[in-house]
Order: sequence, then C-alpha cells, then structure tokens
Amino acid sequence: MNAVIDLLSEGQSGFALSMEAVAARAGVGKATIYRRWPNKEAMLIDAVGTMKGPPVQPPGESLRGDLIALVSANRGKRMEIYGKVTACLIPDLLRDEELRAAFGAVMEPRRDLMRNVLRRGVESGELRADLDIELSLLMLQAPGMVQNWFRWNPNIPHEGLAEKLVDNFLRGAAA
Amino acid sequence: MNAVIDLLSEGQSGFALSMEAVAARAGVGKATIYRRWPNKEAMLIDAVGTMKGPPVQPPGESLRGDLIALVSANRGKRMEIYGKVTACLIPDLLRDEELRAAFGAVMEPRRDLMRNVLRRGVESGELRADLDIELSLLMLQAPGMVQNWFRWNPNIPHEGLAEKLVDNFLRGAAA
Repeated sequence: MNAVIDLLSEGQSGFALSMEAVAARAGVGKATIYRRWPNKEAMLIDAVGTMKGPPVQPPGESLRGDLIALVSANRGKRMEIYGKVTACLIPDLLRDEELRAAFGAVMEPRRDLMRNVLRRGVESGELRADLDIELSLLMLQAPGMVQNWFRWNPNIPHEGLAEKLVDNFLRGAAA
Repeated sequence: MNAVIDLLSEGQSGFALSMEAVAARAGVGKATIYRRWPNKEAMLIDAVGTMKGPPVQPPGESLRGDLIALVSANRGKRMEIYGKVTACLIPDLLRDEELRAAFGAVMEPRRDLMRNVLRRGVESGELRADLDIELSLLMLQAPGMVQNWFRWNPNIPHEGLAEKLVDNFLRGAAA
C-alpha cells in the first residue's frame, strides 16, 4: 500500500501504475503482490481505503460542525491522489458490479457517519422531518469531489468550500 | 470524432484508446489524426464537446423548469461514455493547466446558460439576492456527475434525480 501511494504521490496516474512497478518499489516479487491482490483494480481499491484512513469522527458539538468536519475530511493533497486513483477506476466501476461493491465497502462506513449526523439532526428537530437523507449525502459530498478531482468550477476557491456547502445545505434542510 | 465516440461506446475506456485505433476506425492514416490533434488528450477534449453537442437551451417557462432542463442535459448513455472520457482526463486535468483551459472552454458555455437562469431568478425575486451563483452551479451539477460516472450513492435512483436536486436546491435558494 505504501509503495502504491508513493508512486501515485509522485504523479503517476492509477492506470499507468503497473503491478511490476509496485512490486519493485515494495522490494518484493510480483507473485507476492498477486497473492494479496488478484488484479490492479482490487489493489487500487485497497489503496483508496488506506489513503482515506480511518473515517473522521465528527466532534459532536453541533450539527453544522459535524457536517463541516465530514465534508472537509477528504481535502488537500491526499484527495488529489485519491482523485487520480478513482479516476482510473471509474470505467471499471461503471462496468464491474463486483468492483463497485468493493468500492462501496470503502465508502459505506463514511456515508454512515454522515447519515447518523443527519438523522440526529432530524430527531433534534434542527432538520426537516421529511429530509431525504440519501440525497443529502450526495448533495454534501459530490461538490467537493468534482472540485478536488479536476476543479470543475475554477471560480470557486477550495478554501472555505466545506463551510459554504454546509451552510447552503442547511438553509434548505432546516426544519 | 465519430470514430472516437464509437470506440468509447463499445466499452473502450479513454485511456485504453489509441490514436492508431481511432485512425483505423476512421479509415485514415495516423498522420491525418495528428494533423488535427497534437495528442490524445486534445482529441478526447474535442470528443467531450462533440458528445455533449450544442448546449441544451432552457425552455424559459419557469425557473424550476429551466434548472431541471439544464441539470438533466447530461443524462443516460451519452453521460456514461462522457464519464469514461472525463475519468481518463482527470489526472491530466489535475496536472496540465492548458488542458484544464481547453476543458473549461467546453464547460463554460454550459455553465453560462445556468448562470443566466440563476441571475434571472435573482432579478425576478424568486431567488435570494445574496445567492452565490458559482457555488450554486456546483451544487446543481456535481451530484449528477458522480452519480452518472460511478453511482457514488447506489441508494439514489437515477430516475427523478434532476427534479429532486432542483427542488432541494430551490428550498435553500428561495428568496
């Protein structure tokens, strides 16, 4: 995993990455790599989980603070590397049900943290009772993804994006 | 362009695509391709524009209807192919300022259509006077991108997504 992340950090894109290069960087034989990962996609999904690290736990002091903590969790250099990996996985994710499931297994615990924060907000009466939780996850996380991956809208500064997204979301989600 | 889009429609990913394959499919020599496009990235960005086709003009009957028309513009199979292209461009877009500019030139006229719809909504008093237009573009378009590219949240059906996104956005953006 360190070898994979090193190579990606050095600017290599996930699809240019070879199992050979990873084995060489890790100082092991290719067979050792293949014993652990059947193919590059499986290895990259593992790398996604490793890069993301343990899910960021929301501080729990306020709904707004928790949402900002979760939305800002994937920021900066790490997210840029993560974007390079995910980018090269998208065609496979579109095609391969099994790979989508493996990717989902990395994402799901993180989505669950946000689901819980949103549900608590509904229970406390801060958020509307009819809030669409699944759609809210998407509305809160998708903008940061496309900005971090390829700066879809160059007119939006990265700085303060999480706060702005959460405040705009809350304006519409408030009870 | 037709050769590129054909090959991508057949399941080829953008980064597996070779100039040779495109030349062969188009029935021309490689030199002909290189006279028009210096490299594959330039060719793929041109393909993005061709696939997207002329920007969808909003019907202009209502703010909600215009936003839904613009948010739904990139739906279905075409968007899946588009996702395959963009996916393979992301690492280059992250790295290459010039390429980002070329990509932006394809996106900008489409973003402008939505800017105009949002500005008209502010002028008519339907939307808050202090609405952040640039952030609104991102909040309206990013969710559809990550859902169409790799179904980030599998619990959200594609059907009706544009309507739900617009309605949730309007709830927070209303004057």
